[in-house]
Amino acid sequence: MKADAAPTAPPQRLRAPQLKRFIADALLAIGLPAKDAATCAELMVRADLHGADGHGIFRLPQYVRRIKGGAVNVKPKVKVAREAAGMARVNRSNHAGPASLYAAMPLEHDMIGLYLAVGNANHMAPWGGIDLLLSTNPIAVAAPGNETSIVLDMATTVAAYGKVKTAVQRGETLPEGWMIDHQGKPLTDPKRADQGLLVPIGGYKGYGLALVFGLLAGTLNGAAMGSETVDFNADDVTPTNTGHAIVAISIAAFGDVDEFKRRVDKLSREIRRSKPMPGVARIWLPGEQSRARFEERSKLGVPIPEPLHASLEKLARELKIKALAP
Amino acid sequence: MKADAAPTAPPQRLRAPQLKRFIADALLAIGLPAKDAATCAELMVRADLHGADGHGIFRLPQYVRRIKGGAVNVKPKVKVAREAAGMARVNRSNHAGPASLYAAMPLEHDMIGLYLAVGNANHMAPWGGIDLLLSTNPIAVAAPGNETSIVLDMATTVAAYGKVKTAVQRGETLPEGWMIDHQGKPLTDPKRADQGLLVPIGGYKGYGLALVFGLLAGTLNGAAMGSETVDFNADDVTPTNTGHAIVAISIAAFGDVDEFKRRVDKLSREIRRSKPMPGVARIWLPGEQSRARFEERSKLGVPIPEPLHASLEKLARELKIKALAP
Repeated sequence: MKADAAPTAPPQRLRAPQLKRFIADALLAIGLPAKDAATCAELMVRADLHGADGHGIFRLPQYVRRIKGGAVNVKPKVKVAREAAGMARVNRSNHAGPASLYAAMPLEHDMIGLYLAVGNANHMAPWGGIDLLLSTNPIAVAAPGNETSIVLDMATTVAAYGKVKTAVQRGETLPEGWMIDHQGKPLTDPKRADQGLLVPIGGYKGYGLALVFGLLAGTLNGAAMGSETVDFNADDVTPTNTGHAIVAISIAAFGDVDEFKRRVDKLSREIRRSKPMPGVARIWLPGEQSRARFEERSKLGVPIPEPLHASLEKLARELKIKALAP
Repeated sequence: MKADAAPTAPPQRLRAPQLKRFIADALLAIGLPAKDAATCAELMVRADLHGADGHGIFRLPQYVRRIKGGAVNVKPKVKVAREAAGMARVNRSNHAGPASLYAAMPLEHDMIGLYLAVGNANHMAPWGGIDLLLSTNPIAVAAPGNETSIVLDMATTVAAYGKVKTAVQRGETLPEGWMIDHQGKPLTDPKRADQGLLVPIGGYKGYGLALVFGLLAGTLNGAAMGSETVDFNADDVTPTNTGHAIVAISIAAFGDVDEFKRRVDKLSREIRRSKPMPGVARIWLPGEQSRARFEERSKLGVPIPEPLHASLEKLARELKIKALAP
């Protein structure tokens, strides 16, 4: 029975506090100060709760490898390098997980959040080219309503590289439109994925977006861009000098905060209640599915597939920390 | 001979000063102050010189109709409604032409420009829906280099509506991917274009971008968004209350300006010299083709196709202004 049932059995679920404890223990064991370990654990589990599985506890073994490899300074002196009205530039940064985490932080202060970053591996070429000079440079924007906040979080490629990796691991044919080969033809064979280029959204438009988001998040901050980008999946020793841009816009500076929220709610209702195409169950707002997943996973726990669980148990033995689950 | 040659004859070219004079005369004739008429003429011809034909003198008859219809206040008292460190909100606005005009303005001040707007007609639905609640809300970003400045200007839809209109006028089949019908199927028949929805870049991603750019440019400024948007192609009497967001980022606040420009140049060279796919002549940077067109048209003049020329001569007679060309 067990062998038959296994492939369709849903993965076990583990509760957020347990995952946080495990991540914090692991990071503490490799030298992070307790407060920083707790902050990282909190943010990584928040990613898992929101369904950004590729940015949650799944990444822990890689983070541990890179920290042990010396690629990450675990006791940085974070300094404001430049400051002016409404801006500050902070010294060198690193990988930071899902964009929406940072864009959503201003929401509780009645502010609009905007976040841009240079991704940590180049899997895209300039449009028409084949040299890997660009990453999936994401954008996230969060705007508060009283009923619903709108939270967009997207890569500038059709598919994030994590989705490709998952399909490749499962041996699944890649959907047409995710990758192209060096002739510009659709690449769908998972065995050839390492020869593929991620396709930017809207072709040359997504290429342009990835480029200018990278200029704002990376170049402007003296961070890596283009050929300087370190592939943090393949490299455990080199600091990435990752660029991020975080903008918090005070709604009160522009007008009445409640009026803004009412207008966001009105727009959200218009969109939600708008007429769907045949076969479409409902119209979603950016961030709604993620919020639904957050609520479900906060109650029921985060699904941890068996291979991930095994890798985390292995990590626990290596770091001599308490195992994840009985 | 003439009848045979006509379809392939290139359109006549008219020089920028002549076009500016004509536009300024027309706007002056319908009540704009001389200084404002000159500013509008300068910007519209700049659009033509850069190849943004749909935003140049082509629009003049429509602008005249809307001004005569009372949709535009020709003597506005432009006021700063709110002001804080690094920001100002100005009162109600109108259609403004191509996004890149405004994003490029900070370049000569060694600043990065960013521009977002709510488009002036809803031809897009929320992803999966059929109600026209969104426009092609564009983004433009301009960053200076010493050798090359990068200037991105793009709609969040695969094709701008102007491109659809041009194809329809010519009776050409629409390329697949530009529009979908109310079943979500590709719409390529130009006769059915009025039943079509523009397709956002990257599907739900472009829908999300159009929405958040609209929140920043429109909702935050108390300007029209969603169902409030006035279709300025169909309506000559209603003020549009169009929302724009213009950001000028001081590079000097973040670091050394020359160092930034050198890094932009290095990245530009990397991209330009990167390996193209077979059959691709060269890799373009955002803004390069537009700049090449600017140089060519500044020398040789702006092509004015015969139907446009005829409509401008008709306008000259109506407004009793000097004709465009002998």
